[in-house]
Amino acid sequence: MEQKIYFEQYEINNLRTTYGRTISEADIVFHAGHTGDFFPHHMDEVFCAQQDFKKRIAHGTMTFSIGIGLTATLLNPVAMTYGYDKLRFPCPVFIGDTIHTEVEIMSKRVHDKRPGYGFVVEACRVINQDKKVVLYCEHILLVEIEEMNNDTI
Amino acid sequence: MEQKIYFEQYEINNLRTTYGRTISEADIVFHAGHTGDFFPHHMDEVFCAQQDFKKRIAHGTMTFSIGIGLTATLLNPVAMTYGYDKLRFPCPVFIGDTIHTEVEIMSKRVHDKRPGYGFVVEACRVINQDKKVVLYCEHILLVEIEEMNNDTI
Amino acid sequence: MEQKIYFEQYEINNLRTTYGRTISEADIVFHAGHTGDFFPHHMDEVFCAQQDFKKRIAHGTMTFSIGIGLTATLLNPVAMTYGYDKLRFPCPVFIGDTIHTEVEIMSKRVHDKRPGYGFVVEACRVINQDKKVVLYCEHILLVEIEEMNNDTI
Amino acid sequence: MEQKIYFEQYEINNLRTTYGRTISEADIVFHAGHTGDFFPHHMDEVFCAQQDFKKRIAHGTMTFSIGIGLTATLLNPVAMTYGYDKLRFPCPVFIGDTIHTEVEIMSKRVHDKRPGYGFVVEACRVINQDKKVVLYCEHILLVEIEEMNNDTI
Amino acid sequence: MEQKIYFEQYEINNLRTTYGRTISEADIVFHAGHTGDFFPHHMDEVFCAQQDFKKRIAHGTMTFSIGIGLTATLLNPVAMTYGYDKLRFPCPVFIGDTIHTEVEIMSKRVHDKRPGYGFVVEACRVINQDKKVVLYCEHILLVEIEEMNNDTI
Amino acid sequence: MEQKIYFEQYEINNLRTTYGRTISEADIVFHAGHTGDFFPHHMDEVFCAQQDFKKRIAHGTMTFSIGIGLTATLLNPVAMTYGYDKLRFPCPVFIGDTIHTEVEIMSKRVHDKRPGYGFVVEACRVINQDKKVVLYCEHILLVEIEEMNNDTI
Repeated sequence: MEQKIYFEQYEINNLRTTYGRTISEADIVFHAGHTGDFFPHHMDEVFCAQQDFKKRIAHGTMTFSIGIGLTATLLNPVAMTYGYDKLRFPCPVFIGDTIHTEVEIMSKRVHDKRPGYGFVVEACRVINQDKKVVLYCEHILLVEIEEMNNDTI
Repeated sequence: MEQKIYFEQYEINNLRTTYGRTISEADIVFHAGHTGDFFPHHMDEVFCAQQDFKKRIAHGTMTFSIGIGLTATLLNPVAMTYGYDKLRFPCPVFIGDTIHTEVEIMSKRVHDKRPGYGFVVEACRVINQDKKVVLYCEHILLVEIEEMNNDTI
Repeated sequence: MEQKIYFEQYEINNLRTTYGRTISEADIVFHAGHTGDFFPHHMDEVFCAQQDFKKRIAHGTMTFSIGIGLTATLLNPVAMTYGYDKLRFPCPVFIGDTIHTEVEIMSKRVHDKRPGYGFVVEACRVINQDKKVVLYCEHILLVEIEEMNNDTI
Repeated sequence: MEQKIYFEQYEINNLRTTYGRTISEADIVFHAGHTGDFFPHHMDEVFCAQQDFKKRIAHGTMTFSIGIGLTATLLNPVAMTYGYDKLRFPCPVFIGDTIHTEVEIMSKRVHDKRPGYGFVVEACRVINQDKKVVLYCEHILLVEIEEMNNDTI
Repeated sequence: MEQKIYFEQYEINNLRTTYGRTISEADIVFHAGHTGDFFPHHMDEVFCAQQDFKKRIAHGTMTFSIGIGLTATLLNPVAMTYGYDKLRFPCPVFIGDTIHTEVEIMSKRVHDKRPGYGFVVEACRVINQDKKVVLYCEHILLVEIEEMNNDTI
Repeated sequence: MEQKIYFEQYEINNLRTTYGRTISEADIVFHAGHTGDFFPHHMDEVFCAQQDFKKRIAHGTMTFSIGIGLTATLLNPVAMTYGYDKLRFPCPVFIGDTIHTEVEIMSKRVHDKRPGYGFVVEACRVINQDKKVVLYCEHILLVEIEEMNNDTI
């Protein structure tokens, strides 16, 4: 699934929504194993029973990785990830929660120093089954400007 | 390994360095499988041979997850992650690269609205075997202020 | 565990039964990650609650892979898999189901064009804890004919 | 990524091609672990060095699972998998091979006994970097007929 | 986290306790897949319901691997594992149990034949949420003697 | 594959040999992730290049888990694992090594305190492609004595 979407074609406020995914205990075990973060907030039910949330919580890096992963359905060959800003975790994710991601085009601007490219900023909100935002971030894309790139080709 | 480190005790410019970790093809296969991002930049050698980098590159979310995971060796029960800012990927990570993370205390300030807490910002640099920074981000911690919390206890 | 079983020694209607295996949520998370199929029928409890089965269902390719994997206990060095026919999924597999596989020798015939070899067809039935067949297929083996191969040795 | 495609809309000879995926040693280790099939043809380099192919080969069930998984990019809510026929493995898959899948609409017919449904048969060919077919199968879909289903709604 | 601890510095009866970890069904599925041990005591709920423990039990090798893994938080560059003695499994580990490990310095003695080295024996007890010991073993470390090694440097 | 083998039937010096298995980088990544032991001896090629062995080495707990796992092909319902003694690691295991396990019946004796049971000790040697023993241990089985158990049934 591939589609060229140039800088000009990104429309502010355009919103897309991904499929959902239920977060399992296996996901937490995986992510601990993949990252090496075995802190008891994620891995120890007895410890967690005495904490504020009473239950094990997902790693923030996992909510980010899966939340962003859910958006990886359409490959745009004229865009690449530049970075992420304002990554926040307003609510915890628990085992059994079902999350999906909303991506909204937030702003765009021409790149000052790199001719033919512009920045597009997407607001990403990972949302659980109770419609609570569990992760927010701003995904910055570096995108080709069609007019300027077509001149060179 | 647990140690209480209060807001007062974080020292600007303090630097710590993690162990290293060699990124394997298995890590990329794992991360694709964990996130569902099977884009050919990560998974398809034939495709990658025709791209700029010539080789498969690690997912940005993986470099972030592993890079931050490497720092999870000492649990500070009076601090929690508030978020991350300015997450950037200056260089790609390839299979066989060995990365480690440097964490430097960058700034701190008392929380305006939440008495007894302050923000500590750590600059995190994930660095490869050639001393190139492959990931940069600013990790924002919310940390208890010892003086104010000890009063209440 | 290795045993040479030649074409002549396969007996029609001979039946063997494997051990059982309980299908876990982890298995579904694994298989999604291994294949890249994250369709909500497998991964999203909220979506599934509104579908006919009300629950997440296992991937067909997973029931096949595990069902056939259960039979891989005895290596026959004079046989190889030629293919599978009539692969069907009469009932869904849910998290928590326990499946085993029955393998019944169904038919055999000498290979027309390849001297010294014959086809043996095994009917494979993957069966759940309620004795329902959840997968049916016909496994076609290419097997050495002892008489003809012993002549050459 | 969801799109309703009714029986009427499937066009014979329509062909689609998936992204590619490089098969890693990790994939074979995963699949052995997921299915329990640790036969030496997949797991033991020393054994394989003395066999015809000289190298470890992928499990047939893995080539099937990944090959079909590659096609799971567009969800059609009015179709479901009925089964697979003529699953064959014309060539082995080795570690380092890059495979993709071609799906061609082969035939369709109205279901005799289930009004409002038809069968669509897709020929699936998993193809390696040398353009050799490593897996062939016929995927049978059960698809709603738009005309008849729209009448009832 | 690295600290040189020489033979002289190990104190008999010194005790350290690790964080806890809740054992999940995913862990058992992992370990079966990693080791190839799919015996029904670990994998088949229907079978287990008719056995003494009524429930699936963790592999002994898993309890050992995780129990010892929990202790791997502080790297001592002047010590290495020599072996393990008296590995026993006094109680089973079930899905949902939370285990941690206690390590107690039990004995030490100078190595007869290898000048500059001594043996330190740690009693390792893996303990569940009900304070029952589920695994016991004696971990034998080969440790540098500071005095003798400093002489040579 | 199940077979009742009673205490009386274990013959001293009886030897069985398992299939082999090539240890991959993926196995080491898995085992680190499963146990939480990310020490640089296993995970960091740059670190290892400066150590004695020059290469990453497998975790001892992994060699044990896989080495014992290779023997899990025949289930004996009248025997259970009592423990392991003298677990030693005479040689390291590197990525790419192919290991198999030899199991030799070493000794047996009637249980003093538990009528109807005896101990059988198996010497387990995990051996690499160069015929070097990489792991040795003595596996103690608790086995039913046929004569005494048949009396009660």
